[in-house]
Amino acid sequence: MKIPARIGPRGYRVAVTTRLIILNGGSSSGKSGIARCLQTVLPEPWLTVGTDTFVEALPAAMRGSDAGIEFAADGVVSVGPEFRALEAAWIAGVAAMARSGARIVVDEVFLGGPASQQRWRTALDGLEVLWVGVRCDSEVAAGRELARGDRVGGMAVSQADVVHVGVDYDLEVDTTHTESLTCAHAIAAHLS
Amino acid sequence: MKIPARIGPRGYRVAVTTRLIILNGGSSSGKSGIARCLQTVLPEPWLTVGTDTFVEALPAAMRGSDAGIEFAADGVVSVGPEFRALEAAWIAGVAAMARSGARIVVDEVFLGGPASQQRWRTALDGLEVLWVGVRCDSEVAAGRELARGDRVGGMAVSQADVVHVGVDYDLEVDTTHTESLTCAHAIAAHLS
Amino acid sequence: MKIPARIGPRGYRVAVTTRLIILNGGSSSGKSGIARCLQTVLPEPWLTVGTDTFVEALPAAMRGSDAGIEFAADGVVSVGPEFRALEAAWIAGVAAMARSGARIVVDEVFLGGPASQQRWRTALDGLEVLWVGVRCDSEVAAGRELARGDRVGGMAVSQADVVHVGVDYDLEVDTTHTESLTCAHAIAAHLS
Amino acid sequence: MKIPARIGPRGYRVAVTTRLIILNGGSSSGKSGIARCLQTVLPEPWLTVGTDTFVEALPAAMRGSDAGIEFAADGVVSVGPEFRALEAAWIAGVAAMARSGARIVVDEVFLGGPASQQRWRTALDGLEVLWVGVRCDSEVAAGRELARGDRVGGMAVSQADVVHVGVDYDLEVDTTHTESLTCAHAIAAHLS
Repeated sequence: MKIPARIGPRGYRVAVTTRLIILNGGSSSGKSGIARCLQTVLPEPWLTVGTDTFVEALPAAMRGSDAGIEFAADGVVSVGPEFRALEAAWIAGVAAMARSGARIVVDEVFLGGPASQQRWRTALDGLEVLWVGVRCDSEVAAGRELARGDRVGGMAVSQADVVHVGVDYDLEVDTTHTESLTCAHAIAAHLS
Repeated sequence: MKIPARIGPRGYRVAVTTRLIILNGGSSSGKSGIARCLQTVLPEPWLTVGTDTFVEALPAAMRGSDAGIEFAADGVVSVGPEFRALEAAWIAGVAAMARSGARIVVDEVFLGGPASQQRWRTALDGLEVLWVGVRCDSEVAAGRELARGDRVGGMAVSQADVVHVGVDYDLEVDTTHTESLTCAHAIAAHLS
Repeated sequence: MKIPARIGPRGYRVAVTTRLIILNGGSSSGKSGIARCLQTVLPEPWLTVGTDTFVEALPAAMRGSDAGIEFAADGVVSVGPEFRALEAAWIAGVAAMARSGARIVVDEVFLGGPASQQRWRTALDGLEVLWVGVRCDSEVAAGRELARGDRVGGMAVSQADVVHVGVDYDLEVDTTHTESLTCAHAIAAHLS
Repeated sequence: MKIPARIGPRGYRVAVTTRLIILNGGSSSGKSGIARCLQTVLPEPWLTVGTDTFVEALPAAMRGSDAGIEFAADGVVSVGPEFRALEAAWIAGVAAMARSGARIVVDEVFLGGPASQQRWRTALDGLEVLWVGVRCDSEVAAGRELARGDRVGGMAVSQADVVHVGVDYDLEVDTTHTESLTCAHAIAAHLS
C-alpha cells in the first residue's frame, strides 16, 4: 500500500528524503534571498547556513591574510591552507547536522568549481542532496552589488560564471529576470 | 623525552588537547566580545559559533512562534519541540566540526541550566572541553543592554543568574569590572 | 555666450541646479538601491538620507509607542505628535543641508500621501527638487520583503499603492521589471 | 514668581534651554552607548546623529578616496576638500534641526581638535550646547575595539588622546572604569 504524500500548508509535498538543498552561485546572484524564501515556502523547518556563516566564524585575521580568505581589490577571493582545513571541518559539521535530522539549505560559492562540489559530495555521502545552480547575468549581478552597497565591488562579475564551470546540478534557476520567491517555488517543486 | 611546548607569538602555549571553549552566560554579559578576543590572542585559528549563529540559521517563523524560540516582552525566552530537535542537530554538527580538527569557541546561553550543559556534554563526549562561566552583575548587564541598543530589553536581567544555576565550570570570569580582553587572557592561560 | 555643459566621467551632465532628488515609494520597492546607484553614477558627490536615517536617530522607545512610530503586526505604520514634531525638525534640517550646498538624495515613504509631499515642498521652498515616484508591483515587493529577511512582513503590500495616491512626480520608475541601476540612469538623465 | 521645574519620570528636570549635547571622543571610547542611554534616561525625546550617520550618507567612493574620508591601515583617518564641504552642510543641517525645535545628541570625533569644535560652535551660534568630553584609556579602548570586531584596528589608539587636545568642555566623563549608563546619568544631571 502506498503511503499518500503529506501536503504542507503551501501546497508542497513534505520532503521525505531530501536532506540538503545546495545553492551554488556567485556573489550577488541572489542565493541568500532564495534561501530565505525556501525557509518560508517549505512546510518543514529548514536551517540555512553558508559561506557567509563560515566566514563570520573565522578569526578576523584570517579574513584578510594569506593564511585565510582574501578579498582582493578586484573582488577575486583566494584562500590558504588553514582556511581549507577549517572549511573541511565546517563541511563535516554541516553533514553531521543533516545526519542528525536537520534539513539544511546551504548557500555556497564554489570558487573551486568541481573541486568545491567534490568536497561537499564526499562529506555528504549517503545523504540525499538537491544540487541547484543559481545563475545571474554578470552585468545584472554587478548592478545589484552596487545597489546593495555592502559588498566589495567586482566580486559579482569575477564570480558570475567561474563558479558554475564543471559543476553538476539537478536544477538551475536564473535570477536575471526571475524573482527569488519564484525561484524558491521552482526548487520546492523538485524536492523528493 | 618530553616534547617542549610550542609557544605562539603572543606568549601562549599552543593548545595541544583542548578542542572547545564553551562560554556560558546571560545576554549582554560579554561572551561575544571575549570570543573575538580569544580568536585574536590564541596562536591557532579558532572558529566561533553560538546561539546567535543558530538562531540566524532558523526560519524567520521559528523565531517568533510557539514552535520555535520566543522573545517575550519581559525578555524571557522559551522554546518548543521543533527548536529542540534542530538544536540537537546543531550541537551534533558543532561536535563533528571539532572531531574533524577545528578548534571552536562556543558562545552559549544555557537557558536550561544543567540540562543545557548535559546536552552539550553528551554530544562532546571524548573531546577535551574548557567550560567557562561568564558572569556579569545583572544591573550592569542591563545597562550594557541599553547602551547596545539592538537587544530586546529585559533579557540581560532575566538571564543573568539563572543560566549559571547548577552548571559546572573549569573557570569563571566576571565582566562586571574586568575587560573582555583581560578575561580572554585568563581563559587562554587555562588551555591544556 | 552659452556656457557649455560640464560632462562627468559617466557621461552625465553635471547638475547645475537640481539640489534634491526625492524618491518616494513603499517598503521594499527598491528606493535605497536606486539611491546608492545614483551616488555612483552621478559625477558630483550626493548625500543620501531618508526615513531609515531618521528612525535610527529616534529614541528606541519612540519606535514602538503611541507617541512615536509604530509597526503594527500587519505592517501598517502609524505615528504620533512627538514623532511629527521631530520629523518637521528633521525635514527643516535636510533643507538647510541643501541650502548650504549639499546635493541630497532623499529616500522617503510618504505614508500621508500628498500631505507628506506638502511638508517637504514647504520646507524646500526655493530649492530645485526632482520628485521621483518609485513603484513596484505589490506582489513582487512582498516577495522581495520575504527575500530580504530583515523587514516586518506586510509592510510592502500595505504601502505599495497608498504612498503614491495624490502625489505629483517629475518622473516615475518601476522596479518590477527594471533593475535599480537602470532606474538610476533614467533619473540621472532628468537632472537639470 | 519662579516657575517650578518640571520633573520627568526618571527624576531629571525637563531641559528648558539645552538644545544639543555634543559628545566628543575617540573611536571605541563609548560615545554611542552613552547617547543611547541618554535617549532612555532623559524625559524628552532626543534625536541622536553623529559621524557614523554622516559617513553612511556619503557615496561609497568617498569613504575610501583622497577626495573623501580615508581609513588607513593604522586607523588614522584623513579627509579631503569635498568631504569638508559636505560636512559643513551636514553641520548646518543639524543646527537647523535644533533651531526647529529638536533636541539632539551629537556623537562626534573631533579629528581636527579645536578646529573641529570651532566649526560646530560657529554653526550652533545662539543655541545652548552642553559640550562633553568622552575619555577612555587608550589601551582599554583598543581592547574594546578588538572585542567589538567590526572596527578597523588601530583607530581607538590613534584617536584616544588627539581628539581632546585643545577642546573645551562643560563636563568630562571617562568610560575606562565607568559604565555608559552611569556616564549618561552624570550628563543628564548637568542639563539646564
